[in-house]
Amino acid sequence: MDIKHYMQTLGQQARAASRRLARASTAEKDAALTAIAAAIRRDKEILLAANARDLEAARAAGLDAGLDAGLDAALDAALMDRLTLTAKGVDNMAEGVRQIAQLADPIGEMTDIRFRPSGIQVGKMRVPLGVIGIIYEARPNVTADAAALCLKSGNAAILRGGSEAIHSNRAIAALVQEGLQIAGLPAEAVQMVDTTDRAAVGELITLREYVDVIVPRGGKGLIARLLAEARVPMIQHLDGNCHVYLETEADPNKALRIVENAKTQRYGTCNTAESLLVDREVAKMLLPMIGHMLTAKGVEIRGCEETRTIVANARPATEEDYYTEYLAPVISVKVVAGLDEAIAHINQYSSHHTDAIVTENHTQAMRFLREVDSSSVMINASTRFADGFEYGLGAEIGISTDKIHARGPVGLEGLTCQKWVVFGNGHVRS
Amino acid sequence: MDIKHYMQTLGQQARAASRRLARASTAEKDAALTAIAAAIRRDKEILLAANARDLEAARAAGLDAGLDAGLDAALDAALMDRLTLTAKGVDNMAEGVRQIAQLADPIGEMTDIRFRPSGIQVGKMRVPLGVIGIIYEARPNVTADAAALCLKSGNAAILRGGSEAIHSNRAIAALVQEGLQIAGLPAEAVQMVDTTDRAAVGELITLREYVDVIVPRGGKGLIARLLAEARVPMIQHLDGNCHVYLETEADPNKALRIVENAKTQRYGTCNTAESLLVDREVAKMLLPMIGHMLTAKGVEIRGCEETRTIVANARPATEEDYYTEYLAPVISVKVVAGLDEAIAHINQYSSHHTDAIVTENHTQAMRFLREVDSSSVMINASTRFADGFEYGLGAEIGISTDKIHARGPVGLEGLTCQKWVVFGNGHVRS
Repeated sequence: MDIKHYMQTLGQQARAASRRLARASTAEKDAALTAIAAAIRRDKEILLAANARDLEAARAAGLDAGLDAGLDAALDAALMDRLTLTAKGVDNMAEGVRQIAQLADPIGEMTDIRFRPSGIQVGKMRVPLGVIGIIYEARPNVTADAAALCLKSGNAAILRGGSEAIHSNRAIAALVQEGLQIAGLPAEAVQMVDTTDRAAVGELITLREYVDVIVPRGGKGLIARLLAEARVPMIQHLDGNCHVYLETEADPNKALRIVENAKTQRYGTCNTAESLLVDREVAKMLLPMIGHMLTAKGVEIRGCEETRTIVANARPATEEDYYTEYLAPVISVKVVAGLDEAIAHINQYSSHHTDAIVTENHTQAMRFLREVDSSSVMINASTRFADGFEYGLGAEIGISTDKIHARGPVGLEGLTCQKWVVFGNGHVRS
Repeated sequence: MDIKHYMQTLGQQARAASRRLARASTAEKDAALTAIAAAIRRDKEILLAANARDLEAARAAGLDAGLDAGLDAALDAALMDRLTLTAKGVDNMAEGVRQIAQLADPIGEMTDIRFRPSGIQVGKMRVPLGVIGIIYEARPNVTADAAALCLKSGNAAILRGGSEAIHSNRAIAALVQEGLQIAGLPAEAVQMVDTTDRAAVGELITLREYVDVIVPRGGKGLIARLLAEARVPMIQHLDGNCHVYLETEADPNKALRIVENAKTQRYGTCNTAESLLVDREVAKMLLPMIGHMLTAKGVEIRGCEETRTIVANARPATEEDYYTEYLAPVISVKVVAGLDEAIAHINQYSSHHTDAIVTENHTQAMRFLREVDSSSVMINASTRFADGFEYGLGAEIGISTDKIHARGPVGLEGLTCQKWVVFGNGHVRS
């Protein structure tokens, strides 16, 4: 198989289909989504059988790798978990597609149409980006989810899932294409890269002519690798090193609740707090209580020298700790001299994902809100809220830690852009 | 001089200054702009003297190059024209800076703040991008203009002008830094790359850590070259191959006016029409009149076979012609079978800059508006209106032919992004 030629062909077909998708009516798109959801429910057993083939292959490969290279058993279990499709998982996948059908159609919205002194009327119209490349890892449900988001936003999609899920992805993609055709839309509007050859990824991220944006959905390892080679713009999501800062006027109860929720509700999510900053004035009051709570929950504390004089069981934090997204029951803690130091520390060490202040002081809160350069900045709320559903986007294609195009949780709107529209009546420029 | 180290230092200083700029008040930024405008007016003679040094060096170099390589005299004259700063040019530069001071401050605007079922309030805040790299060619006035736009939008700027303008740019940059300091803002908020070594450009467009976006202001040659090497996102502007489509229900008077204005008002601008599409049903009625007008204005017509049966003096158009931005008194003309062919032709051959339809038919007009995939799409108006000032942006840093981040004319808002802000009262996620 000539991968370069194969990917060019997918790209050309996607571009052609994207023209049709861009002018598809809301009813056509919703009919396709409804048909896809119904097909997924109908073919549950077929999907589970396809998934069983992937699981079997992964188990065999895992055993091989385990024998060959002493592969980490826990990592292996996590991969199997992401790869597994259950009957309930299939239902959730169908329900997810159905919910996307019910979201408002972002396409065609015209805003800010205003008369200009020249007599023309100028404004903006929201339109699809065109062709979206989605690159993801083991989870097969991303195939249905990403396809549905692209379809609703009028974009054609090229999906490149993990090779370990190829049978599951193939089965899901067939149902997506069936749904498109039922609604009278081109099957090529959603295409799966049907090869496990990794060269296909290299082609996809450099197909400037046919692909308008790449959305990687996976760990930061994947994204860092893509970033180095991509020639197509990417909605990138690197790490989530999130901070909670307890200011001098922090309400102790809110501080405790928020740190507990931000750090311990889930350890593996990107909006989990990884670092706690405490103002010197209140460190002696707040840190013992918070240290106790964290220790009781089994969270390891790595603190600055001052923290360690207050929290006896804190281990020393290194410079590296303050840059680290642990994704584990570990937290770094630093005592700071005030708001200026807190903001400077966050702007230096944060990954610009989500950072929160706890304070009752309005002026301090508003300064933090403005001056912290992160995609989500919060006052008296847990960093765990940084999420497309919590923000009311209805769905989330990813979280961008970049500043260009989309920042923070990205919903349907992030898969669109605005063009300018001009209404005249024979107007010419003088 | 170690260019890599020099550019790293500029980058670090810009990043540090950008933190201060991001929190600068509107009054501080406007005070700096007002001081810069005053300094430019005050030092008019100094600026003209610096410019005279550049002109002298360019003349000497031009003579050398002319003798050595038979350099095109017209090209040479165009370069000298762009490089020359007149007394009136200096006044205009100062006036431009003053006008930017008077624009509304885009920074800090909060929108769409809404309560969510969880009890938090979520919305967006407009913030600067951070550090903007501007790469431009001979025109020294860009130094003041770009600095003022970055400053007003709260961004630090690194300016890399053409080496032939280095004395002029140095003199202008010194006045910008004076104005910043008068207003109590860091001089490093606007830095000029003070070397003619071209390696500096290569460094600037790969300084991901310190530069958030590159705005090239110059010809498409410059941009294509940068695009190949850039690792920093770029607000790119490639060519402007703009179309006017005369639909079957085009009003003949409006058609004539619009084609005349779009093609002949100015030949060298990116929003000039380069290609005319005419519906077969009305070609025999409209083309003779339009051909006559174009010929009278000295515009060369390159037409399809059908065009040539109607317009006697039309030369044959090649496939290449339909892709070409002439920037000259030449136009390609094609007779098409209807709206579908017109839209398909434009989406294939256009540079996605600006395309217009002339028609009295509402349904056809609205289909064109939606389905043409260009940054500006117009009904019954000249493509020449595609411009930041005509659109009411107050100023223009460039025109983007890209779909990501900014599309079409880019004003102050294109130098900003929106972060999410969350207001809670001790809220945690359940």
